[in-house]
Amino acid sequence: MLADAGAVSSASAEPRRFLEGLFAAAVAAADPAHCVRRYLMAAPRGRLIVVGAGKASAAMARAVERNWPGELSGLVVTRYGHGVPCDRIEIVEAAHPVPDDAGLAAAARIMDLAQGLGPDDLLLCLISGGGSALLTLPPAGVSLEDKQAVNRALLHSGAVIGEMNCVRKHLSAIKGGRLAAAAFPAQVVTLLISDVPGDDPAVIASGPTVGDPSSLADARGILARYAITPPASVRAHLEAAESESPKPDDRRLANSVTHIVAAPKASLLAAAEAAKAAGVGALILGDAIEGEAREVGTVHAGIARSCLQHGLPAAAPVVLLSGGETTVTVRGKGRGGRNAEFALGLALALDANERIYALAADTDGIDGSEDNAGVLVMPDTLVRAREKGVDPAAVLAGNDAYSLFAALDDLVVTGPTLTNVNDFRAVLIL
Amino acid sequence: MLADAGAVSSASAEPRRFLEGLFAAAVAAADPAHCVRRYLMAAPRGRLIVVGAGKASAAMARAVERNWPGELSGLVVTRYGHGVPCDRIEIVEAAHPVPDDAGLAAAARIMDLAQGLGPDDLLLCLISGGGSALLTLPPAGVSLEDKQAVNRALLHSGAVIGEMNCVRKHLSAIKGGRLAAAAFPAQVVTLLISDVPGDDPAVIASGPTVGDPSSLADARGILARYAITPPASVRAHLEAAESESPKPDDRRLANSVTHIVAAPKASLLAAAEAAKAAGVGALILGDAIEGEAREVGTVHAGIARSCLQHGLPAAAPVVLLSGGETTVTVRGKGRGGRNAEFALGLALALDANERIYALAADTDGIDGSEDNAGVLVMPDTLVRAREKGVDPAAVLAGNDAYSLFAALDDLVVTGPTLTNVNDFRAVLIL
Repeated sequence: MLADAGAVSSASAEPRRFLEGLFAAAVAAADPAHCVRRYLMAAPRGRLIVVGAGKASAAMARAVERNWPGELSGLVVTRYGHGVPCDRIEIVEAAHPVPDDAGLAAAARIMDLAQGLGPDDLLLCLISGGGSALLTLPPAGVSLEDKQAVNRALLHSGAVIGEMNCVRKHLSAIKGGRLAAAAFPAQVVTLLISDVPGDDPAVIASGPTVGDPSSLADARGILARYAITPPASVRAHLEAAESESPKPDDRRLANSVTHIVAAPKASLLAAAEAAKAAGVGALILGDAIEGEAREVGTVHAGIARSCLQHGLPAAAPVVLLSGGETTVTVRGKGRGGRNAEFALGLALALDANERIYALAADTDGIDGSEDNAGVLVMPDTLVRAREKGVDPAAVLAGNDAYSLFAALDDLVVTGPTLTNVNDFRAVLIL
Repeated sequence: MLADAGAVSSASAEPRRFLEGLFAAAVAAADPAHCVRRYLMAAPRGRLIVVGAGKASAAMARAVERNWPGELSGLVVTRYGHGVPCDRIEIVEAAHPVPDDAGLAAAARIMDLAQGLGPDDLLLCLISGGGSALLTLPPAGVSLEDKQAVNRALLHSGAVIGEMNCVRKHLSAIKGGRLAAAAFPAQVVTLLISDVPGDDPAVIASGPTVGDPSSLADARGILARYAITPPASVRAHLEAAESESPKPDDRRLANSVTHIVAAPKASLLAAAEAAKAAGVGALILGDAIEGEAREVGTVHAGIARSCLQHGLPAAAPVVLLSGGETTVTVRGKGRGGRNAEFALGLALALDANERIYALAADTDGIDGSEDNAGVLVMPDTLVRAREKGVDPAAVLAGNDAYSLFAALDDLVVTGPTLTNVNDFRAVLIL
């Protein structure tokens, strides 16, 4: 379990507890129970309808229920295992990342709720990472199979994420501002927990309540650029003018506002505050650091060594903090998420530096598809592994970092945290 | 040609010239013409003999000649193309990284010079990167072929650099402190230009004048660990007690001192000073950043974006500086050194951010095996490449970054700088 975020212990006496405390502080800053309340708006004259989608949406719904004095009702969809009991808002669990019938049905019902609102009503949307897959609703005339065929072709085409999102927004009845447009003339307030670089509300969960700067012509151009021949239903849809998504200046979105209630940066700042309270400096390298996980680990190791040897970019005792989502190119058959890969890459590059410790974990509590949030790197990580007959470099080559850290009892285990502001990394230099 | 280091232009008006000015400042800080003089010692009662090896050794020798008032003579060996005219010190050019007869003969003559000294004499050693290959001298009874066979086996074994150096120091008649021990009882002063992480004098050029903390038993253990069966001559040599290298407490090394006259950190600090003089903040990420070049570029991009978006780890206008040596895993057949790969990885990750510029170059003036020191990244790098029909991602996949930057006229060309403090990277955020 996570240590109490308020009780950051002395870093040098208990570096493991210190790092766990920083992670707890980062997760706490993104906990819907804490961060939703301050963004709640005044009560509408009419009804309050709460909808939402994402890994954190049920926890956000509960936070709304607990802090809202008046009437409300609604429906949110979250990932299997991420539901929490709510009294007035219906919680539906559905599949992620590949949509299932439960998700499709929930998305249709959410659109129905939005379409029934009048000018005195308020639609409160609770959106977090994972919401894109959970809010799947193909447009009329396009089957889920055809939509998914285009998605798969895009995934293998080399298209970048922005290009994929443009096409997705034009193959949806709910994404790209359509949910908010459907609620017109009601007021729309969207509370967002960001897990994307740049914290762009139009990108988080494909922006169901945010005007779409991209166009139908863009979507057609992207398919042409990657030589993707879509099914006939998709082609027809993308050529019909009425398939255009609402633009940012669409008058139906004039009553729509968005607030980011939790984001990687705020969680990193919370960890930095916790470090400083324990007398340790903090340097935030960035909230959206990307790259191949093991190589990102190597770079963090280089920066940490420079802190130790030269006091640059910061003098010890200091903790380097970073967020964002690394990637893992799978070549072996082992177990391990991207945080475990990052950590083993870091450990190998540090080569048992006796003054450097680290924690890397996913703030959603699940590193990849394992049962741990992340792992800890200690100065003797490599030594202890070798004592057990484990070759750390071979483990990394086989993408088996989880097994190494599990054998060392250096996993960080929290269970699902019901929030998600992406990865969290802390490298402590004493 | 390099811009004048003293004339750093306004960063926002001329970002290209600004970045070239920072690189010029970094190279100038490591220029033997500037950095050798202040470390010259008092004249000995006896003779001054100058020896040396490395890509910068001829330039260091010239700096000694120009600043030494008295008598001197000697011999230094440098790489083909790195010689400069000297009056009293003989300059030999030899092959690097694979040794040739010219290098072998020069190393033998350097040992002869050291062995002929008395207690009133002084041996001045000028050592820089590349010196290990240029100072090749197999021990008696071991042929160059046998020594190289072991080297090749180590390179393919997965042994880390420290392990390879341990074996090399025990298969040499000159490395691992043996040159200084040979000069005993003369005084020995070694001036070093560092291109290695940590700036350890025992590591730079395999430490010919520095006591070796590793042992014969270590060398045998490393060969066993990687299942390398050495030639009989090598096995016999490694089992003879007299093959042990001088240790750090060897009395023959008591008269030996070392000074690092140039190093990556000092060059980064010089660039930081130049940036500040132009009103731009500077953050040094580290002097020994390693990792796969394109991924290191991705990480630098993430840090730069955070500076722009959040003012973390530093607020714009700021330049991120880093040194060290990245690696390139060659999969394609294109042209390009590690700095070009870093830069293209950075450019792709930035995706045409209009406020971020970069320069990446090798301080020795040669990026890989091309004719350029490095390259520049402009906000429109990707756009201009695509206008020329070049697909930047495909170029990177084919390891052909040099061709892209050459087509854009964004190469940094200096010719050999006659020094080497490893790579230099500057990412400017306006």
